Amino acid sequence: RVKCDSENNGGETLLCGFQTSSVLSDSAREKTIFIHGKLDDQDAVVILEKTPIREDTLTDLFTGSRLKLEMRNDIYSTYWLQAPPHLNEIKTTVVCPATEKHVKKYQRQESFLVEESGTDYESITLPYIQRQSFSVQWVYNILEKKAEAERITYEDPDPEVGFVLLPDFKWDQKQVNDLYLIAIVHKRNIRSLRDLTSEHIPLLQNIFQRGKEAILKNFNLPASKLRVYLHYQPSYYHLHVHFTKLGYEAPGCGVERAHLLADVIQNLQSDPKYYKTRTLYFPLRADDGLLGKFKEAGRL
Amino acid sequence: RVKCDSENNGGETLLCGFQTSSVLSDSAREKTIFIHGKLDDQDAVVILEKTPIREDTLTDLFTGSRLKLEMRNDIYSTYWLQAPPHLNEIKTTVVCPATEKHVKKYQRQESFLVEESGTDYESITLPYIQRQSFSVQWVYNILEKKAEAERITYEDPDPEVGFVLLPDFKWDQKQVNDLYLIAIVHKRNIRSLRDLTSEHIPLLQNIFQRGKEAILKNFNLPASKLRVYLHYQPSYYHLHVHFTKLGYEAPGCGVERAHLLADVIQNLQSDPKYYKTRTLYFPLRADDGLLGKFKEAGRL
Repeated sequence: RVKCDSENNGGETLLCGFQTSSVLSDSAREKTIFIHGKLDDQDAVVILEKTPIREDTLTDLFTGSRLKLEMRNDIYSTYWLQAPPHLNEIKTTVVCPATEKHVKKYQRQESFLVEESGTDYESITLPYIQRQSFSVQWVYNILEKKAEAERITYEDPDPEVGFVLLPDFKWDQKQVNDLYLIAIVHKRNIRSLRDLTSEHIPLLQNIFQRGKEAILKNFNLPASKLRVYLHYQPSYYHLHVHFTKLGYEAPGCGVERAHLLADVIQNLQSDPKYYKTRTLYFPLRADDGLLGKFKEAGRL
Repeated sequence: RVKCDSENNGGETLLCGFQTSSVLSDSAREKTIFIHGKLDDQDAVVILEKTPIREDTLTDLFTGSRLKLEMRNDIYSTYWLQAPPHLNEIKTTVVCPATEKHVKKYQRQESFLVEESGTDYESITLPYIQRQSFSVQWVYNILEKKAEAERITYEDPDPEVGFVLLPDFKWDQKQVNDLYLIAIVHKRNIRSLRDLTSEHIPLLQNIFQRGKEAILKNFNLPASKLRVYLHYQPSYYHLHVHFTKLGYEAPGCGVERAHLLADVIQNLQSDPKYYKTRTLYFPLRADDGLLGKFKEAGRL
């Protein structure tokens, strides 16, 4: 039975016996690490996260710590600060015994940046998308009001330039700080950025203009507070546009995957085939079938 | 003169005398805090950031630490871990004497998305940059090896296409997960993306190619793991390129500020004046003088 439950006064030395098997994932930005290993012969996952720096401990921190100089240049200098342990704790979560599901849940998938020329799209990506025939039935359900009808924020029903605007699932709509809406076009068979040409400019301008107006009206957020963009690759192949609040670091708003709608419109205005001919860069996860196709083709 | 420069053996107790005036900003997610205060009667900004958790120290961390039980529920339990100080350092940056500009830079501020046409750049942004005449002396110190020479990862000394590659201050170089390097060009008087024309393609290609090679050689990270980009607006007006690890959500890698170097090169190849004529979008903080200029001009 679970020795992890540790009779040793509150588990003070519990982790001395922890045998690390592998790091499942970590984040240098968030100062977290997820570790898989053994605790008394049982599978366990240990999660460490450094604690936020608290204003009310600063005085004690500054007087009780030692600094080691690292670098000095002009008015800038950097140090390593060694703090008293009680002012610099690490939040520790132990899951024991852990199942395979726990291990998978915390495992990070590595990503690789793929370089896709116009030709690569035709010969690798497009056939892959077509073969997979990913279902977008759930998108059609929304467009036809068979599902989520009550969630719709705004609709322009025009079959050529119209769209449905609704909150993304990630947004709980409790606060505007992490506002996230999606505009889904009524027109079918535009799979992604790659299918766009100058003939779609009126559609894109309509989404840009009316989407911003609807968000101002419904959430009181002006255009200067919005980041409006497409993903490439998208997560489903029916054209849609993301509206997120500027300053909210929404997943997928990085330069390696997002394309500002305003840039897309300008690029199509000056070159009708911009997105047919350009080399586009995007990340793919290690377990993505499309990555396998790029590897087979010797493109990675 | 600057007592901050501290004769007290490498500044070991430098911060004992630090008087906090206010917390400029902090992030519970990133475990950072930016503090404004006084160091020996001089204005100073102190930045604290907890360090990422390193796999290679886990064994020592687990055997050398004490745990305090916080909560136990079924297979889940949480603890506070008190680590030996040398295994749990806090990266500390001191700016002293700090100007009002430094204080503003680190103060949390709302941002607004600005739309800058080629004409706006000429009539609003460029005159503003020229009037400010921001000092880039610290950049010249690096290029001339008067500072940080030992931090240089790679250099191509060519005056036309050469550059210096070195770790960004934000990166402690202890792990590759949050790799962040900056390539600073030797050529002077290229302020930003807006100054680039097709004549700079050899420079940009050289940075792209040799930068990637140097990172592969020094940090064993292939190009498919890198996000290589410029900022617009940049934080200083001497051309530089950011290299960060794909998957690391580096500050400023969002689509609203970052421009992939590969895209910049392609755009200049097809239109030598792409960045002179395009409307560019970027966020400006509420207290940014440039935002005031755009407001005055009725452009926001």
